[in-house]
Amino acid sequence: MKPQIITFLIKCPDQKGIIAKLTHFFYQEGFNILSSQQYVNETEQRFFMRLRVVSDSSVVLSKEQLEERFERLAEAYQITWTVDYGGKKQKVAIMVSHTSHNLYDLLHRHKEGKLFCKVKMVVSNHEKLRPIAEMFGIPFYYLPVTSETRKAQEAELIELFDSNHIDLIVMARYMQILTTDFVKHYPNKIINIHHSFLPAFQGANPYKRAYERGVKLIGATAHYATEDLDEGPIIEQGVERVTHESTPASLKSIGADIETMVLAKAVSFHINNQIIVEGNKAIVFPETGE
Amino acid sequence: MKPQIITFLIKCPDQKGIIAKLTHFFYQEGFNILSSQQYVNETEQRFFMRLRVVSDSSVVLSKEQLEERFERLAEAYQITWTVDYGGKKQKVAIMVSHTSHNLYDLLHRHKEGKLFCKVKMVVSNHEKLRPIAEMFGIPFYYLPVTSETRKAQEAELIELFDSNHIDLIVMARYMQILTTDFVKHYPNKIINIHHSFLPAFQGANPYKRAYERGVKLIGATAHYATEDLDEGPIIEQGVERVTHESTPASLKSIGADIETMVLAKAVSFHINNQIIVEGNKAIVFPETGE
Amino acid sequence: MKPQIITFLIKCPDQKGIIAKLTHFFYQEGFNILSSQQYVNETEQRFFMRLRVVSDSSVVLSKEQLEERFERLAEAYQITWTVDYGGKKQKVAIMVSHTSHNLYDLLHRHKEGKLFCKVKMVVSNHEKLRPIAEMFGIPFYYLPVTSETRKAQEAELIELFDSNHIDLIVMARYMQILTTDFVKHYPNKIINIHHSFLPAFQGANPYKRAYERGVKLIGATAHYATEDLDEGPIIEQGVERVTHESTPASLKSIGADIETMVLAKAVSFHINNQIIVEGNKAIVFPETGE
Amino acid sequence: MKPQIITFLIKCPDQKGIIAKLTHFFYQEGFNILSSQQYVNETEQRFFMRLRVVSDSSVVLSKEQLEERFERLAEAYQITWTVDYGGKKQKVAIMVSHTSHNLYDLLHRHKEGKLFCKVKMVVSNHEKLRPIAEMFGIPFYYLPVTSETRKAQEAELIELFDSNHIDLIVMARYMQILTTDFVKHYPNKIINIHHSFLPAFQGANPYKRAYERGVKLIGATAHYATEDLDEGPIIEQGVERVTHESTPASLKSIGADIETMVLAKAVSFHINNQIIVEGNKAIVFPETGE
Repeated sequence: MKPQIITFLIKCPDQKGIIAKLTHFFYQEGFNILSSQQYVNETEQRFFMRLRVVSDSSVVLSKEQLEERFERLAEAYQITWTVDYGGKKQKVAIMVSHTSHNLYDLLHRHKEGKLFCKVKMVVSNHEKLRPIAEMFGIPFYYLPVTSETRKAQEAELIELFDSNHIDLIVMARYMQILTTDFVKHYPNKIINIHHSFLPAFQGANPYKRAYERGVKLIGATAHYATEDLDEGPIIEQGVERVTHESTPASLKSIGADIETMVLAKAVSFHINNQIIVEGNKAIVFPETGE
Repeated sequence: MKPQIITFLIKCPDQKGIIAKLTHFFYQEGFNILSSQQYVNETEQRFFMRLRVVSDSSVVLSKEQLEERFERLAEAYQITWTVDYGGKKQKVAIMVSHTSHNLYDLLHRHKEGKLFCKVKMVVSNHEKLRPIAEMFGIPFYYLPVTSETRKAQEAELIELFDSNHIDLIVMARYMQILTTDFVKHYPNKIINIHHSFLPAFQGANPYKRAYERGVKLIGATAHYATEDLDEGPIIEQGVERVTHESTPASLKSIGADIETMVLAKAVSFHINNQIIVEGNKAIVFPETGE
Repeated sequence: MKPQIITFLIKCPDQKGIIAKLTHFFYQEGFNILSSQQYVNETEQRFFMRLRVVSDSSVVLSKEQLEERFERLAEAYQITWTVDYGGKKQKVAIMVSHTSHNLYDLLHRHKEGKLFCKVKMVVSNHEKLRPIAEMFGIPFYYLPVTSETRKAQEAELIELFDSNHIDLIVMARYMQILTTDFVKHYPNKIINIHHSFLPAFQGANPYKRAYERGVKLIGATAHYATEDLDEGPIIEQGVERVTHESTPASLKSIGADIETMVLAKAVSFHINNQIIVEGNKAIVFPETGE
Repeated sequence: MKPQIITFLIKCPDQKGIIAKLTHFFYQEGFNILSSQQYVNETEQRFFMRLRVVSDSSVVLSKEQLEERFERLAEAYQITWTVDYGGKKQKVAIMVSHTSHNLYDLLHRHKEGKLFCKVKMVVSNHEKLRPIAEMFGIPFYYLPVTSETRKAQEAELIELFDSNHIDLIVMARYMQILTTDFVKHYPNKIINIHHSFLPAFQGANPYKRAYERGVKLIGATAHYATEDLDEGPIIEQGVERVTHESTPASLKSIGADIETMVLAKAVSFHINNQIIVEGNKAIVFPETGE
């Protein structure tokens, strides 16, 4: 096998000897383990592991053989798993509406090589941000939508994403509701960002209401989109101090900066295979050094 | 007038020349202005000011004369105001139930002279924390309560507080509902602390639910108690990062540390006359240097 | 006078009645005071004020008359002052070398109207970042430099800046030493950003040394450039948690994000006239709501 | 073997198969692995592991046999290791001088069962804090010191600590220099706390100098004491925002709160066996859920 870093994301019932079994498997097949991160949910008796191994010429297995053999182990231990061979960049689509802060930031990081992925397209229900996509040389698709045309537009989106083999959809302030069908088509493959408050303010004009209430902190949450739109597994959160002096406008501006940082981190965690989702919870393993 | 620092908290409709009028008033009467902090709510056209002035022997007014003259100004400008002459410590009652982290911290700061107030008593619906109050030499009152006896117990509380001229009631994890009548008896004089999450988790076992949801931040909010118990004006908030590794127990422990710091700050802001409440919003002026 | 917001930045010896005098002056001349922020350095007995007033048609003074009358007051109270009439955007030059994160961020904010200034040029000692400036339609000047040519290059810089009436120079990771003469030519008009650590690491490769030392926090500081290069008045600072897992490369990447946010805030404070410098200390007044 | 949680802290040269070897060893001997945390320093090719295993009645080994067998593995892989059997609380001595915030906090946490250790004594070079130790029922030792008597006093300290089998010495604002001999007697067993600034201020009156410089952040660092007193391996750091309004006194008060939280965390990490020290770097593994 050619030298490459391979990442396994593993989940199964917690059971005696599971770490030894798993690490021994890779050792026996000639891989060197770069890092092994685990998490055990004691309440649910569930085991989670992120295993990074490196192959070299001493590994005689092909990818297919590796996966076949690992699948045998997986069956014995009721393991659900995914594998990533590292060399291939994930294909990403970014969806936007009117606001540009997240889009600029993601395209800048992408261009500078700080996000290990391939941004294939920017899709929007408005023309407004086309110049930004073009500035960075990324194809821009304009797919307007109304509540009447939602199903048809989503069909177009699915056609567009699937024909381009999109691995991850980043909703960088795409201000449209997605149907359950659409979300279900991309389980744990849609990352959304939205503002967060303590206490939460549901509904319209949250920054105005946060201002009226005199909150001292505002924040943002990045999560996977699920049927219950703002309720999916939380990937990352951020927060900043504010004061009574902050106006709704300045709160919104501070909120935009938090959203920018939080979404960039969440996308980075996803494309670096640092996340395992279980039910409504995202286990986010810290980056390891290699 | 003897040398003393006097703090005026002022609110009125915003109007042309109001800062000049107010500062000129004190200048004319011979006071030196130490600091003048304002806030204008543009939407509501309301003006707020915290004015710290110092008197010396050149001030010939008595307190009564000062207040009488200021009241004339107040009438002309529709000003609502309070004044504090600085030398007198506010009298504080601390209410607790089972948990001790806030109580220890407040009594320690009080004892070390870091909170400029006089803690007159600790009141609880349980005997459990009596030893802590006694350790610090503070009278402890045990007033048990059930839903049946709530009205009677609150009558006892009011009798106890009012006969001791209590200025501020700090609910340092007092885990009982207060009636609307009780809360209305002490407008903006009861400070409560509770945990805060993004998103919010209503109801029982919030730390367990935060754990299940995999939140990345937990926090705490100190606010004035109003009829709608957890919805009063927010005085201070704090937050800490957590990970999926955190158990409900460790979340609770981290939450306790945040509550400790946030409540101490809120109490300090109150007794330093840094807060003006308007509607459901607490305007908290930063501490000034003098 | 046409309706406009006028900002006075004022410093003088602290003295009795100064706030009343100053606010009364503007009241008498027919201005409405939007906000009045003060700071008193007790140790040094110095008074600082940021005063925002608004004119309307009832103000009969011209700018020249206003300044002439204010100067009379200033002389009486030993006041040093500056005034900004709000309508005119400050002209900004950005200096860079190799790294692009601050440049992208500033040009993005500028383009989106979030920084109230006019970025007139990007200047670099390398060609590398020219495409970014051009992407945003900002003139790019390439002025290479060696230690031998430093004086000549700085003369070119001064010629370039002064002929373009540059008000503020932002060193957005310009990795060259500036001579004392150059820095003195632009007192409190050059903002620099650099990484900060606890403890500090002087010299080369700070991220490698922070890694070797196992720091748990890294940060960044924006400050005005003075003769003693990394020692000027601090405008803003930021910090993030890191762990032993962080590599020198990931520390650098986290550091870049902090630098981005901190420099953007510092530039914003400067162009909003929120800063008064006294000696080696920057007094940064919070943004006010109007 | 009786049911117990056993923690191994391991370091060795990084080598192929090391995780598999180590986990397999415990699996073979009948232990269940609760968690396995690793860190690889790529530059130095060093491997670090914190392994938590649980024994039950199926484990036939005695402690001695376990350690003997593990030592054989250790020799083969050049492993340095320590083991902790969990049931036994570490014995802790707290050293103080004048300031009480850390002492109160640690004794409170200890009393409430939040620190899994046994505080055996408080030692001070002043009588001032004796009442606090006595309030919590902890023996207090008064050992005054001058530069002349330092060697003799340290000899007394060593006698006191060693005869009481002290495992950890917490310098909770003990304001005396320790000699190199004393520090070397307790390698990685003395935790110190001190204020931290960006930039750093060496020497006397750091809060006054931070005030004069107008810093926007202040912090604290907990570290192991080494010969170079303020330069040992960093365990934990914290930081808070401040403004120009902060006086030296209020900076000091904010600093005290940060020190309180940071030292409590550092002590907790140490007694929970979360730390491996390598050279001048502390690898602090996050708490795991079990």
